[in-house]
Amino acid sequence: MKASRVFLLDGGTLEMDGFHIFWNRGPGGPVRIPCYSVLIDHPEGKILFDTGFGLEHTQRVLPFEKPEQTPEQSVPGQLARAGYRADDVTHVVNSHFHFDHCGANNLMHNASFFCHRLEYEAAEHPQSFEALGYSDLSFAPQIERIPVGGRPDARAQGVGTFRPRFELLSGDTEILDGVRLIETPGHSAGHCSLLVELDSGRKMLFTADAAYGSRSLETGCIASFHFDPVASVKSMERLASLAEEEGCELFFSHEAESFAQYTRAPGFYS
Amino acid sequence: MKASRVFLLDGGTLEMDGFHIFWNRGPGGPVRIPCYSVLIDHPEGKILFDTGFGLEHTQRVLPFEKPEQTPEQSVPGQLARAGYRADDVTHVVNSHFHFDHCGANNLMHNASFFCHRLEYEAAEHPQSFEALGYSDLSFAPQIERIPVGGRPDARAQGVGTFRPRFELLSGDTEILDGVRLIETPGHSAGHCSLLVELDSGRKMLFTADAAYGSRSLETGCIASFHFDPVASVKSMERLASLAEEEGCELFFSHEAESFAQYTRAPGFYS
Repeated sequence: MKASRVFLLDGGTLEMDGFHIFWNRGPGGPVRIPCYSVLIDHPEGKILFDTGFGLEHTQRVLPFEKPEQTPEQSVPGQLARAGYRADDVTHVVNSHFHFDHCGANNLMHNASFFCHRLEYEAAEHPQSFEALGYSDLSFAPQIERIPVGGRPDARAQGVGTFRPRFELLSGDTEILDGVRLIETPGHSAGHCSLLVELDSGRKMLFTADAAYGSRSLETGCIASFHFDPVASVKSMERLASLAEEEGCELFFSHEAESFAQYTRAPGFYS
Repeated sequence: MKASRVFLLDGGTLEMDGFHIFWNRGPGGPVRIPCYSVLIDHPEGKILFDTGFGLEHTQRVLPFEKPEQTPEQSVPGQLARAGYRADDVTHVVNSHFHFDHCGANNLMHNASFFCHRLEYEAAEHPQSFEALGYSDLSFAPQIERIPVGGRPDARAQGVGTFRPRFELLSGDTEILDGVRLIETPGHSAGHCSLLVELDSGRKMLFTADAAYGSRSLETGCIASFHFDPVASVKSMERLASLAEEEGCELFFSHEAESFAQYTRAPGFYS
């Protein structure tokens, strides 16, 4: 049995320089980019793929990204729009653990967490240039890093009872029938994209940050935030091939022009 | 017998965005950076370490870097200031083959060329994101790539008789007594720095693009042009350790504030 409905949950926007979106190419200058989460209503559970950025964390640690997120654009606000509650979520699947993809993980108290093994290890032992990316680990109290930003983070402030179960994966993995995590490393060490096949036969391929936008894919230009640019280019090529071979619709992570055309909650894909 | 004199040959300037100089950190905005070559007068030969950018090539293929180079800042012009001619050069050693480090290689008709084996292979088979970096291969007619910029380059226009001998190296290598190539990969696949010990005992460590400037080293921030950022960070750490252990003076590649303090030809280090 496959999933019947997929909701895109608008999570607000961040500001980034064009040189960060298109590595070494630009053009430079501020660009406002969307962030969103994906809720997959599956007969065997409710899967949340990525959870956007935490507003308070981003305001405190990365204020230069100028986060904008209304209460309605919080994950609980968006889940409510779609007719769900945070406690309905049984699976949280993260493409990677950068702060703008796991910001509401810590609200999913009934979920098991799924990610690539290498991503978990990268969050534990990030490269120096990844420290800000992996700055919001409030959802993983078992990772004992000193938080970036100089102040104790949520887990030191009494969230202590929240200690989620992690399932660490390797290789492409089918999490539930028709929901496949696809290895696309490079942006981060254990980055994955998600391919969802609905019971209608529709196939949705969520690139996550392996391709910020359609222009990234068209030009072969990866984002400036990356762990391994050579792997990043290969992963982007893999996504393009996979979409063509399997007839997938592509959903990019951070492109305003694309996001404007997607159906958002309470609308859904079926 | 070690070298007696080292000349720094001013090769003019390029313009780059601050986000290219300090990866993902900036601040953004145009910054004018110096390029220079190093002439080592050694009892067993005249070694040229890097040769700056070719003005015509840069104007044609990378005009957005706004090259500025007076005739006196050409390598032949600078060699003349120091009392040498291009035909005196017996060894051309390249840190790597990006256009702003090998632009006058093709004028050194009496020299053997030395570089890391991996660098030669990278120039033959660059990553897509390295195409502009490796755009000036006019000095290596044996590399049969289609040149970037859409026009036939020098080697197709009758330089045909210039076919230099390459010595491809692996590991740290002493090229002549006291002149050591040091592996510092990351910025490019086969990037090397150069440590020169003079007969006076003075030790000069030319980082090349493993560290654009002192601020790069102090902040651990690598440049945005790179092949492997993880290796880049390690290489920068290696340079800092090496300089401390061996008591070397550090010479950075592309920082105006540092370059302003260096002695330039016709002055020299001894």
